[in-house]
Amino acid sequence: MKRRTLIEGAIASAAVLSSTGALAAASDSELKAIKQAVDAGYDASLRRIEDWVRFPTVAAEKLNVDEGADYMAKLASDAGFTKVRKVATGGSPAVFGVIDAGAKRTVGLYFMYDVKQFDEPNWSSPPLEPTFFDHAKGRALRGRGVINHKGPEATFLATLHAFKAAGVPLPVNLVLLAEGEEEIGSPNFFNAFKDPEVLAALQGCSDVFMPTSMQGLDGEIGIYLGAKGIIECELIASGGERWGRGSSLDIHSGFKASVDSPVWRLIEALSTLVKDGGNTPAIDGWFEHFRPLTDRERELIAESARNSKEADIKQVLGVQRWINDKSWQEALEANAGQPTVNIEGLVAGYTGPGGKTILPSRATAKLDFRLVPNMSAKDGLAKLRAHLDKRGFQDIEIKAGGHYDPTETAETSSLVRAEKATLETLGVSHSVVPRIAGSYPGYLFTGAPLHKPFNQFGLGHGGKAHAPDEFYLIESKDPKVAGLREATLGNVEFLYQLAAL
Amino acid sequence: MKRRTLIEGAIASAAVLSSTGALAAASDSELKAIKQAVDAGYDASLRRIEDWVRFPTVAAEKLNVDEGADYMAKLASDAGFTKVRKVATGGSPAVFGVIDAGAKRTVGLYFMYDVKQFDEPNWSSPPLEPTFFDHAKGRALRGRGVINHKGPEATFLATLHAFKAAGVPLPVNLVLLAEGEEEIGSPNFFNAFKDPEVLAALQGCSDVFMPTSMQGLDGEIGIYLGAKGIIECELIASGGERWGRGSSLDIHSGFKASVDSPVWRLIEALSTLVKDGGNTPAIDGWFEHFRPLTDRERELIAESARNSKEADIKQVLGVQRWINDKSWQEALEANAGQPTVNIEGLVAGYTGPGGKTILPSRATAKLDFRLVPNMSAKDGLAKLRAHLDKRGFQDIEIKAGGHYDPTETAETSSLVRAEKATLETLGVSHSVVPRIAGSYPGYLFTGAPLHKPFNQFGLGHGGKAHAPDEFYLIESKDPKVAGLREATLGNVEFLYQLAAL
Repeated sequence: MKRRTLIEGAIASAAVLSSTGALAAASDSELKAIKQAVDAGYDASLRRIEDWVRFPTVAAEKLNVDEGADYMAKLASDAGFTKVRKVATGGSPAVFGVIDAGAKRTVGLYFMYDVKQFDEPNWSSPPLEPTFFDHAKGRALRGRGVINHKGPEATFLATLHAFKAAGVPLPVNLVLLAEGEEEIGSPNFFNAFKDPEVLAALQGCSDVFMPTSMQGLDGEIGIYLGAKGIIECELIASGGERWGRGSSLDIHSGFKASVDSPVWRLIEALSTLVKDGGNTPAIDGWFEHFRPLTDRERELIAESARNSKEADIKQVLGVQRWINDKSWQEALEANAGQPTVNIEGLVAGYTGPGGKTILPSRATAKLDFRLVPNMSAKDGLAKLRAHLDKRGFQDIEIKAGGHYDPTETAETSSLVRAEKATLETLGVSHSVVPRIAGSYPGYLFTGAPLHKPFNQFGLGHGGKAHAPDEFYLIESKDPKVAGLREATLGNVEFLYQLAAL
Repeated sequence: MKRRTLIEGAIASAAVLSSTGALAAASDSELKAIKQAVDAGYDASLRRIEDWVRFPTVAAEKLNVDEGADYMAKLASDAGFTKVRKVATGGSPAVFGVIDAGAKRTVGLYFMYDVKQFDEPNWSSPPLEPTFFDHAKGRALRGRGVINHKGPEATFLATLHAFKAAGVPLPVNLVLLAEGEEEIGSPNFFNAFKDPEVLAALQGCSDVFMPTSMQGLDGEIGIYLGAKGIIECELIASGGERWGRGSSLDIHSGFKASVDSPVWRLIEALSTLVKDGGNTPAIDGWFEHFRPLTDRERELIAESARNSKEADIKQVLGVQRWINDKSWQEALEANAGQPTVNIEGLVAGYTGPGGKTILPSRATAKLDFRLVPNMSAKDGLAKLRAHLDKRGFQDIEIKAGGHYDPTETAETSSLVRAEKATLETLGVSHSVVPRIAGSYPGYLFTGAPLHKPFNQFGLGHGGKAHAPDEFYLIESKDPKVAGLREATLGNVEFLYQLAAL
């Protein structure tokens, strides 16, 4: 069944999930029943995505925090999880649940129930009103959170509903831990791991993963071995008591001649954090624990560079040149291997149309710092504070947001082997990516005390996460790219592969 | 009648405007009639201020531009101006009018009918709803534009209404030119001076002034000999075509490792504009035409420093220390004599609560540059462009807003002599201030082709211009500080002093 395309499989449904490979564990009749249940549940699965999109949790705005957790808990219960409950974290609650299928192996699931802010202009349809549109690859659904991460998560729930409806036991037991603050950097999620029941359940897992729709436009998948860490924080310069200079009020800018400006002060402080036009961190000791890419990582990136289309990605990103006119392979190496200092946003003084002649009392820079092994967020924050202090910027406040350490999972781990086997069985082109440039709180699973393999996995396609017109492909017309139905079936294969290890 | 306080005068109303000095030109019965008319018109004068505050023109937001000009024209006509009309400028229209009183001398009046934006938080009452409150000096009115400049201007109109109601001819003819873009730096006002009727009328004036409430908390007045010039502009760095780097879209900040940031670029460019923590301009050639303070200017500032209370001003400004811990006199010298580079506002990327992991496509700094003699705005803009270009920042856009050249009027001019005589007659403590740190478009009157004396003048007290809780004192309980009635009477004295030169 190698290289069989998904849609062929989906059409010849009796063949797609055949009794070869891992699926030998399931009887033909069980597989047939699951597939029939996927089809019978299709409308409900789609509605589940749409309804969830309509009910956003946005941690940055404290929007629907408890309500979003309750919604997540109901989704879990409906899909067959037991012992479902909210776990206090000090911030948005986590949601816990288990499915004991009587299987030998137990696998962990990480979900997020929050989404990015949805107030950007330029959406083609209201961001909370899921809307179908014609995408190059088929019919796609547009809405906030639909790819990041409600669509892929709800697709996994559709898989569980299909098992349940078919009366087929899951091939693995499951432990779910969902959080509601991923989009603000999971500042409190670590507290959920202190809950004895949660910790014990996770310790019993062989592997942990997050359902994700990972296919590119040609259906290819990059299996991630890790992600960068991140520190999000605000640097705030303000006039008045803390600094002893500037003004505690926004005053007439005529006074600039005799009054210091916290805006210039912030700019001066920011300038010390980087060199090379903002492209290289210059914080004291920032590279102390930096580990360069390994030979194997470079080899994987080179392969990835050969197998991906630089021009397509530049077009999607609106980019003409990479930093220093790097080659595609060098750009990918930087994404995987280089720590960054990024300014997400600047706010000071008057921000409306035209001008306003004030000397502002306050200036804020919103920063994110991406970290690579073996840097840590805690150490980074301490180094940032020390760097500013050493230069006399004790008055500049660091308001820490979320932060993750980098996360890594071995290429030889059971999780990655199951993923490779799934994609080979389903005929999905794939490569191994040493590290994504984005961040997720995988270190909570891969770091102490759990030390579990962890990454993101799943078929399907979507895009524009964090941006207007975020979308998720529902009905694919490309045999190489999964829609909702095919991604739901892909999860079935994956669960059997995990069980077969 | 020297050192007679205003309120004493106002109470002993027959004495206040007595037949000494310039008022000898008016008969006792005329003066009595004017004073009675001021009192009879008091309620209407107050209502005129309140109604005007309720109808804001904000040029930056294109709010009530034509309507505000029409409103100004009606105010002028009601006060006795003839030939009143709007004068096209390419931006907000100017408003022109004359009063031919058959007098020997003609004096110009400069008004502004626009106000600063009013959307700041922290107003104690709605900014467009004039509200009385108890101020240390009496009952004051709070509202946007009430001190800058509708209150003082409407007070001058009250003076004209009083002459009209009393049937007393004005001692001088008047030419009014009002603009509606002062708060955005008068980018188009100069075009009004190209109108032949306007130009001819202004050429016939001996002096030009702007009604202003200038008294401090102890009633003292600083007579201004000039103002700094200003350049307002935005510096905009953006990713994409113009730069050839960065992204034309806001993209996921994970790409910072391979994609340049226009935010860092803007910060790098801004950093080159200043030194000494933002306190000294460092733009190439910025000081080429700079003229240091003269000995007489330093002498006047030293006197002003002795006569004003540093601690009070620091408290009002929310300032603990001046730049480099300057003395009060040094701070005043800097306000008068030093050019500045100020950042009014910064806007880039995500500006809401918390963070958002994007690499922004655009960053904007709103700047104002204050200029001293003999710098010019046009030359400054050219130097700024050349400075950026020389450092490779050709991609950074300069979006010019309003700009004024510096303005100066001689201490020996007829205007300043009339002002001094007025204050001496009324017993108002005063000093001469060489230059204010703020800016107004006086260069249009003091520069070519008019070369007229110009400054701001008037009794009364207010504060928080450009800020929340802007206010204007209406009913004073301090004999040294004028309220609405006393300021209206002060204008009478000033008009007779102007006529007596």
